[in-house]
Amino acid sequence: MSNALKSDTICALATSVGGAIAVIRISGKDTFETLSRIFSKDILYAEPNTIHYGRIFAPSIPASQIEIVDEVLVSIFRAPHSYTGEDSAEISCHASAYIVKRIIELLIMNGCRQAEPGEFTQRAFLNGKMDLSQAEAVADLIAASNKATHKIALSQLRGGFSSELSQLREQLLRLTSLLELELDFSDHEDLEFADRTELLQLARTIDSRILHLAQSFETGQALKNGIPVAIVGKTNVGKSTLLNRLLHDDRAIVSDVHGTTRDTVEDTMILGGATFRIIDTAGIRQTEDSVERIGIDRTYQAIEKAKIILWVIDELPTAAETADIRRRTEGKTLITIWNKSDQHSIPTDSNIEAIAISAKNDDNIDTLERAIYSAANIPELNENDVIVTSARHYEALSRAHKNLERVLSGLQSSLTGDLLAEDLRLVLSDLSDITGGQITSQETLNNIFKHFCVGK
Amino acid sequence: MSNALKSDTICALATSVGGAIAVIRISGKDTFETLSRIFSKDILYAEPNTIHYGRIFAPSIPASQIEIVDEVLVSIFRAPHSYTGEDSAEISCHASAYIVKRIIELLIMNGCRQAEPGEFTQRAFLNGKMDLSQAEAVADLIAASNKATHKIALSQLRGGFSSELSQLREQLLRLTSLLELELDFSDHEDLEFADRTELLQLARTIDSRILHLAQSFETGQALKNGIPVAIVGKTNVGKSTLLNRLLHDDRAIVSDVHGTTRDTVEDTMILGGATFRIIDTAGIRQTEDSVERIGIDRTYQAIEKAKIILWVIDELPTAAETADIRRRTEGKTLITIWNKSDQHSIPTDSNIEAIAISAKNDDNIDTLERAIYSAANIPELNENDVIVTSARHYEALSRAHKNLERVLSGLQSSLTGDLLAEDLRLVLSDLSDITGGQITSQETLNNIFKHFCVGK
Repeated sequence: MSNALKSDTICALATSVGGAIAVIRISGKDTFETLSRIFSKDILYAEPNTIHYGRIFAPSIPASQIEIVDEVLVSIFRAPHSYTGEDSAEISCHASAYIVKRIIELLIMNGCRQAEPGEFTQRAFLNGKMDLSQAEAVADLIAASNKATHKIALSQLRGGFSSELSQLREQLLRLTSLLELELDFSDHEDLEFADRTELLQLARTIDSRILHLAQSFETGQALKNGIPVAIVGKTNVGKSTLLNRLLHDDRAIVSDVHGTTRDTVEDTMILGGATFRIIDTAGIRQTEDSVERIGIDRTYQAIEKAKIILWVIDELPTAAETADIRRRTEGKTLITIWNKSDQHSIPTDSNIEAIAISAKNDDNIDTLERAIYSAANIPELNENDVIVTSARHYEALSRAHKNLERVLSGLQSSLTGDLLAEDLRLVLSDLSDITGGQITSQETLNNIFKHFCVGK
Repeated sequence: MSNALKSDTICALATSVGGAIAVIRISGKDTFETLSRIFSKDILYAEPNTIHYGRIFAPSIPASQIEIVDEVLVSIFRAPHSYTGEDSAEISCHASAYIVKRIIELLIMNGCRQAEPGEFTQRAFLNGKMDLSQAEAVADLIAASNKATHKIALSQLRGGFSSELSQLREQLLRLTSLLELELDFSDHEDLEFADRTELLQLARTIDSRILHLAQSFETGQALKNGIPVAIVGKTNVGKSTLLNRLLHDDRAIVSDVHGTTRDTVEDTMILGGATFRIIDTAGIRQTEDSVERIGIDRTYQAIEKAKIILWVIDELPTAAETADIRRRTEGKTLITIWNKSDQHSIPTDSNIEAIAISAKNDDNIDTLERAIYSAANIPELNENDVIVTSARHYEALSRAHKNLERVLSGLQSSLTGDLLAEDLRLVLSDLSDITGGQITSQETLNNIFKHFCVGK
């Protein structure tokens, strides 16, 4: 896929087959000419943003052999007021696999090309309808499965991140011009000191903002991929029952036989709009069963990967057991859960801090859920908060931070303005990589858009 | 679901989640009022068949807390020029499960009701936008997976069947009025004979057409469900290889071990626009393996269910074998296939009629495919041919035929016109059941529409 192909007309199914209706998208300069060959209504001069009811047919000689494919609605969009910025149209047809296949065949026979993954959005970017970070947000928005990731993606799509970056860019340009001013007055040695203080302060402000954005990547990752939670404990304390309770379904097999859960079972639950990946694990006990032992090894791996550990007990742990779990979960949040509270409550003389629940009877699960959410330490997201979720953006911000650190130390060591300006240009370029404001390589574009679905 | 609910406003996802965009449908008198509460553009007085770009939001007090759900396109349709015949709209949003769920929640919070399966199409029927046979064709059209079923469903949707029935209805009414004329002139005994001949001829024409329609149900069923084809033969003659060749994929496990195929494997292939259900079977041989024996029993069941039998051989069958397969496939089309023609061709001195192929080398498979298609005896379908595919329609036509037979024998036995008119009314009512022209019971409607997907 190269920019040279930008001038042709592309088509693709934009919905998935399976519902009642399917939508096929067309974009490019020949959109209306192609459509007019296979659509019964004359739409060559149709008004933009209008809908037309008619038949899609396969042209044929003699005309009596014309094959009618479907009765459809065609929506007309005219450049530049379309998603891609080009002339484009959408065919809303009956969602039959046969009809969709036949219409796309007819479009291709009449001058369209099947679109590559993400090619509509790539055209929107190339035509200046959105910057690169906004284009990437489209894929995130579609993939968003909870309120938090949805909010982040939508804010990014609506230009929240872009405007943040544009502010940083302005500040960097101001810094550059101040440096140039300094260069111009470099004869006046008495002036330098005051300027440098101001420059240093401005550079620090910018750096702190860049660092803040880069650091939001950890939250972004956690929200995007789900916060990993491991459920551990001895066999038969009710870990699988608890998992089912948290997931509100019967994902894991529950049985009374010791060591039933041999594989780690992973699933997600949504609490307070954020996704948690719950990892159920084999019980920890001495076992002769080699398959089960593999399961126990995986338990320790699960603990390592998790951010929050739910330690399920149904009797007071020994000091050694408590020490062992504390050692293994160092640096993570450990939540101790006293299960089977319907059968026996926590001994009042014990000093154990645990949440008493009955997974079986659904007792106190809401308290546990609040504790899990609180342990995740998710920042309260406001509409305009920018959270970095893309590794590509994180890397660019990290590079910008590194280059800006050089500017900072240069400012302090009285490096000359022309050398500092060079590093500042690098910082500007790093930030531009995120929005694609300067020339973006085809390789970068391909890497970004290949993860899109066809039709977007 | 009762007709009384017709006045409320319904909404549902019309596409399936999974592509790039999703479409949510709204229909009913409050469509625009509901939409205007959650859509950023004022569409209360928008022109019909226009598209509007804006944001879907969750209204909130204070306004600063407003949650933006997505940037969408809204299409406006005004009664009666919409699918349902009511005011309606379509929201085209990003295809995220979260967004779709949220928008539907907001629509419901602001006055919509989640639509029942097929409720949009049911409203189209109740509002006179289509008759019942057309409404049923919508579901068939969406399910159509090949050219033949697609053609039949589209023709039915476009009113082909309806107009055929309406012609029959006209002829029946003419017959009734001629009978009334006869009644009026019943004093003139000399006139009767000529009239009855004409009446009889007309009734026979109508009956023959009704019978023809009813008989098309067999073809309709075969095309809709696929024409069953069984592949049989001894073990290791290459039945599974042939199946894979016909299906153009690797559906069945192929191995050199005798008796590999134990389960019947069923899949479909499309030839000449029609679907064939190919049933691969276990090889026929004496076996001590009980699991395999079950497979062989199934082979005989498969032969019974099939319309076409592909008998694969790789050596000349004995007279007993030939007699056995002929006996078992009586009344079906038997195609004998000489496989492994690359290793040894049919002995020239044999008088066996077989198609020589090499499934392994893809030799002569096209000849075999033509033979299978031809054996299916599929009528050449023209754009306006009516093929009955619904059991409900078949039953109504059968009833009509039965009642018309009574009219015919009554005409011949000089039954009086008033008694004949009674039977003619029954025939008219039978045909009306198909299109729902007269009052259709809610039970019938529920039975028809419960098989639709939600959103259609």
